[in-house]
Amino acid sequence: MSKLFVVGIGPGGTEYMSAQAVEALKQSEIIVGYSGYIEYIKPFIEGKEVFQTGMTGEIERCKYAVSKAKEGKTVSIISTGDAGLYGMAGPILELAPDLNVEIIPGISAAFAAASRLGAPLMHDTALISLSDRLTDYEVIKKRVGLAAEGDFVIALYNPKSKTRSDYIEEAVNIILKFRAPQTPVGIVKNACRNNEKITVTELQKINYDEIDMFSLIIIGNSNTYIQNGKIITPRGYKIK
Amino acid sequence: MSKLFVVGIGPGGTEYMSAQAVEALKQSEIIVGYSGYIEYIKPFIEGKEVFQTGMTGEIERCKYAVSKAKEGKTVSIISTGDAGLYGMAGPILELAPDLNVEIIPGISAAFAAASRLGAPLMHDTALISLSDRLTDYEVIKKRVGLAAEGDFVIALYNPKSKTRSDYIEEAVNIILKFRAPQTPVGIVKNACRNNEKITVTELQKINYDEIDMFSLIIIGNSNTYIQNGKIITPRGYKIK
Repeated sequence: MSKLFVVGIGPGGTEYMSAQAVEALKQSEIIVGYSGYIEYIKPFIEGKEVFQTGMTGEIERCKYAVSKAKEGKTVSIISTGDAGLYGMAGPILELAPDLNVEIIPGISAAFAAASRLGAPLMHDTALISLSDRLTDYEVIKKRVGLAAEGDFVIALYNPKSKTRSDYIEEAVNIILKFRAPQTPVGIVKNACRNNEKITVTELQKINYDEIDMFSLIIIGNSNTYIQNGKIITPRGYKIK
Repeated sequence: MSKLFVVGIGPGGTEYMSAQAVEALKQSEIIVGYSGYIEYIKPFIEGKEVFQTGMTGEIERCKYAVSKAKEGKTVSIISTGDAGLYGMAGPILELAPDLNVEIIPGISAAFAAASRLGAPLMHDTALISLSDRLTDYEVIKKRVGLAAEGDFVIALYNPKSKTRSDYIEEAVNIILKFRAPQTPVGIVKNACRNNEKITVTELQKINYDEIDMFSLIIIGNSNTYIQNGKIITPRGYKIK
């Protein structure tokens, strides 16, 4: 029987993949993914058919994976991070309601970045993508404002691209209406990958030039502080 | 040199653990964790000292782990899900700013539950714990309301305990001010564990009796729908 795995491979390195994700890749005859991310699963694809396309080729990849699964093949389509947050799980299920689909969760970028920054999440968190390719920018800004008002820790995905270089600064300005200028901010570029770069700063001191499309931004809540270069959001325990 | 790993083991089964998490456990001389969760890592603790305490024993466990690491031991303290969201990363860093601590991320419950429900996250998501043990209940209710107003997908952690059996119903009533009664809701009890139970329902039809402290609740946004028993939140792609 054919099977279609939607595999969250985590942030990058194979050491962050779950055993289940590795097993799905090994079982598959065909691997489908964004060309920039195939390198992360190299140890598991030898001898298999690999179908890769470039950025914005998501639906083309999904359609190929579905068509091959319908032919009876076992197929894995990969997402970095988790398969179900800004990933391929949604479009696959929309395209293939009748197929035998298994969603394999993975470690999403906010959690990968957080682990490198210390413990910035720890408490109620809003996950927001600043990409307006599929979402109205007014909706995005409204969400940023409400998350700031609610004192959520805020993790910003897709903070920048060539066509929207100023969204991150606009988002920070919205957040500054509710949160102190000294609020800790973590910027992690290529979290848990070879070329990782970690910056710990404050809302008022962000250097926007160092943010790019591979960056994940975490903005602390009103209790978050920096200690020895690590960002910590207290859960509320009486520690001492 | 001593080392303290804070290990997110994911939802439960070893197949959801990252290779890095397994490696940390294997390297450790001492494993520290909540007694109810030690069973999930059984294959990796043979011959090791295991220090376990019951629920609400978090700080006792953290202090033990820190004291042993300070003695020069290699220690792993585990959290289910991710180590940094409602996990042990925060209190460990607060207690031990000078230690050699490595945070190992894991698959948090919202992502585990989502993978069993279909693709309910897919878009901007608010992660909120309904536990008021460490957070003022008014803050929690405010966050639920703002997340609902912002049309976030909402994942509710710790939806119920003996002392707060009605919080989940109050949260749903707040959400109903902003969202349709037919909004899809997923309830996953023991996500990705042996005794898993999955319920797909609607905001207006929730059976509160089937929710307990091992449940994770996901509430869709205004575009979320149910198809063949799966919950799907569209990302916004033109699919057809």
